[in-house]
Amino acid sequence: MPRKRQNEKSVLKKIAGSFRSSRGQGAGHSVALGMGDDAALFRPKRGHEIILTCDWFLEGTHFLRQKHPPDAVGWKCLARAVSDVGAMGGIPRCFLLSLALPGTHTGRWLDLFLGGLRRASRKFQCPLAGGDTTRRNEILISVTVVGEVRAGSAVLRSGARADDILYVSGRLGEAELGLWIIRQSQGAASKKNTLTRKHLYPEPRLALGQWLVKKGLATAMMDLSDGLSSDLSRLCAASAVGARVEKVKIPQVQTPDLALKHGRDPLQFALHGGDDYELLFTVPPRKAKLLPKTFRRVRLTPIGKITRKRELLVLEKNGRARQLIPGGWDPFR
Amino acid sequence: MPRKRQNEKSVLKKIAGSFRSSRGQGAGHSVALGMGDDAALFRPKRGHEIILTCDWFLEGTHFLRQKHPPDAVGWKCLARAVSDVGAMGGIPRCFLLSLALPGTHTGRWLDLFLGGLRRASRKFQCPLAGGDTTRRNEILISVTVVGEVRAGSAVLRSGARADDILYVSGRLGEAELGLWIIRQSQGAASKKNTLTRKHLYPEPRLALGQWLVKKGLATAMMDLSDGLSSDLSRLCAASAVGARVEKVKIPQVQTPDLALKHGRDPLQFALHGGDDYELLFTVPPRKAKLLPKTFRRVRLTPIGKITRKRELLVLEKNGRARQLIPGGWDPFR
Repeated sequence: MPRKRQNEKSVLKKIAGSFRSSRGQGAGHSVALGMGDDAALFRPKRGHEIILTCDWFLEGTHFLRQKHPPDAVGWKCLARAVSDVGAMGGIPRCFLLSLALPGTHTGRWLDLFLGGLRRASRKFQCPLAGGDTTRRNEILISVTVVGEVRAGSAVLRSGARADDILYVSGRLGEAELGLWIIRQSQGAASKKNTLTRKHLYPEPRLALGQWLVKKGLATAMMDLSDGLSSDLSRLCAASAVGARVEKVKIPQVQTPDLALKHGRDPLQFALHGGDDYELLFTVPPRKAKLLPKTFRRVRLTPIGKITRKRELLVLEKNGRARQLIPGGWDPFR
Repeated sequence: MPRKRQNEKSVLKKIAGSFRSSRGQGAGHSVALGMGDDAALFRPKRGHEIILTCDWFLEGTHFLRQKHPPDAVGWKCLARAVSDVGAMGGIPRCFLLSLALPGTHTGRWLDLFLGGLRRASRKFQCPLAGGDTTRRNEILISVTVVGEVRAGSAVLRSGARADDILYVSGRLGEAELGLWIIRQSQGAASKKNTLTRKHLYPEPRLALGQWLVKKGLATAMMDLSDGLSSDLSRLCAASAVGARVEKVKIPQVQTPDLALKHGRDPLQFALHGGDDYELLFTVPPRKAKLLPKTFRRVRLTPIGKITRKRELLVLEKNGRARQLIPGGWDPFR
C-alpha cells in the first residue's frame, strides 16, 4: 500500500494540530508562544522558581515497540517526567517533546502516540510548548517538563534528618509486576489488568506532592522511579543519613497466583521494582500525626525511619536487621 | 584490556564533576539547584519571559562517531540549542543534557565530550542544570536550553512585513562545505581548517541577536540551521509574506579549488547548506541605515526584501526571477 510521503513539516503539523489548545491564548496562560518558532516562550509566576527536568524514553530501553501500545508510550513519556516535578511539590506548566521516528511510524502510530500524550497533557494540565523531531530507525523520545514552585518551598532529596519517619504512597512493585505480566503474555499488552495499567499508564502523585509542600510536612521527597532500594539509597546519600525499613510494613503488590507459581517474590518486586512513580518522603515525628492514612484514595504508609548512621537496613520479621543493597534499575549496570 | 565497570552513578558523578562550577552558589546565580535531585530549580528574573528550546544531536543523523571529534560533539550539541535562544534575542541561562552512551564510551570519549561541552557552557555562560543518562549502543543527545528575554521583546519569526529588508549575518554555506571536506578526508576531521571549524564548532550569534533586540531593529528573526532556502520559507510562512532574494548579494562561502574541481557550486552551499547558525532577520527600511556593515567582525548583509506576495524568488544577475525551492535539511524527506 503506498504511503503518503511525509516531511518534517507535515509531522510537525500533525503534532501541533494535536495540541492546538496548548497554544497560549493571552496572559492567563503561561505558555506565551507554542510550537513553530525557534523556541517557546513561557511566563513565570512572580515569587516562583522554575523546575526543570528531562527524561529519556527509548525504544528497547524503556519500552518495547511490539509490546507497548503507542498511546501508553505517549502517556508514559510525559507522566514520568511530570512525576519529577511532583516529587519536588511543584506544579507542571508545560513540556517540550524531542521525538525521533521511523518513516513508517508517522501515520497511525504517531496518531495513537499523540492521543496518549494529549490525554496525559490534559490530565496533568501541562501543555506542549515546543520540541524537535527527526527521522530515525528506532523510536527515541526525550521529554523536558517545566514546572513551578513557590520560591524556597521545593522539597529536595537532601532534607531528611535522623528520626524522621519514612513514608511511601501506594503499593510498591505493581508496575514491575505489570511489566512481568506483559513480558509473559503474547502480543501487545493488555490495558485491562490493574498491574499492567500501572506499568503502562502511571499516575504521578502531583496532588499529594503539592499538598505535602503546602502543609510543610515533608522534609525530603523523591519519586520512586528505579525501585525503593535504589531510590532510598539516593535520598539517604543526598541527606547524609541512613534508614531502617521494616519489611512487614512495606505495602507490597498483591501478586497473582501465576507469578507466585513462577517463584516471583512480591517483596523483591516491592524493594527493587521500578516505574511505580509513587512518592518516597520523610516527615518529622512530631508532624507524623497530621498525615492521613490515605490521600485521595492513595495509601500513605510509614515503612521505617531515618537514622544518623549512614547505612540502609531492612528489619526482618524476627527483628534481625540486614543490609539493603540497591538492586533497582541502573542502565549502566 | 579490562575496563573499569561503570554504573549510572559514576557516569553522573563524572558529568557533575565536570560542571562543578555550574551549581548555584547563592542568589546571584540563576540556577538554584543543579544536578542530583529529581529536577533542577531555576530563578527567573523579574519582568522576563523564559525561552525554552530543545534539539536532538544524534549519531548517524547529526554527527558521525568516526569523523566528529568528541569535544566537537560536546560543543556543537549545546551551541546549536543556544543558537535558538539567540535567534529570539534572548540570553541563555542554563541547560539540561539527555545523554545515552555505549558502555565503551563512558571513559575517554565522555571526558573529551564533556571538555567540549564545558568550553561551550562557559563561552555561552550557560551552566548545566540537570539531565538524564542511560546506556545505548548509539550515542544519543538531546539538549534543552533555557533562556530569558525581557517580557514582550523576543523577536519572533512572524514579525516580517512587506518591504522590510532581509539580512543575514556571516557567510552562508561554510558549515556545509566544511562537512563536505570532512566527508572527503580520511579519518577524523581536521580542526584547523576554517570551514571544518565552522561545521564542528559553530558560534551562535548571541551578541548580535541581543543587540538587535535592544535596539529594536529586527521585526523577525531566526537562526539558519537547515539552510537559507528552507529557513527563509519558514520565516515567510510564519509572517504570511514572501521574499525576493538577490543572488549576487548572498554572501557565499569562499570555495576551495578542490570543491570547485568536484563541481561543487558555492551558491548551492549558500542557498541550501545547513548548520551555519547565522542569523536571518528583517529590518524596516527606515531603520536599515542604523545597521552597521559588520557587528563584532561579523558581516551583516542585506540580501533582498520582504514582499506582500507570498512567493520566494531569487533574482538572477540578469534580473530574471526564478522560484526558490526549499532544498535544505529535512530529516523526513
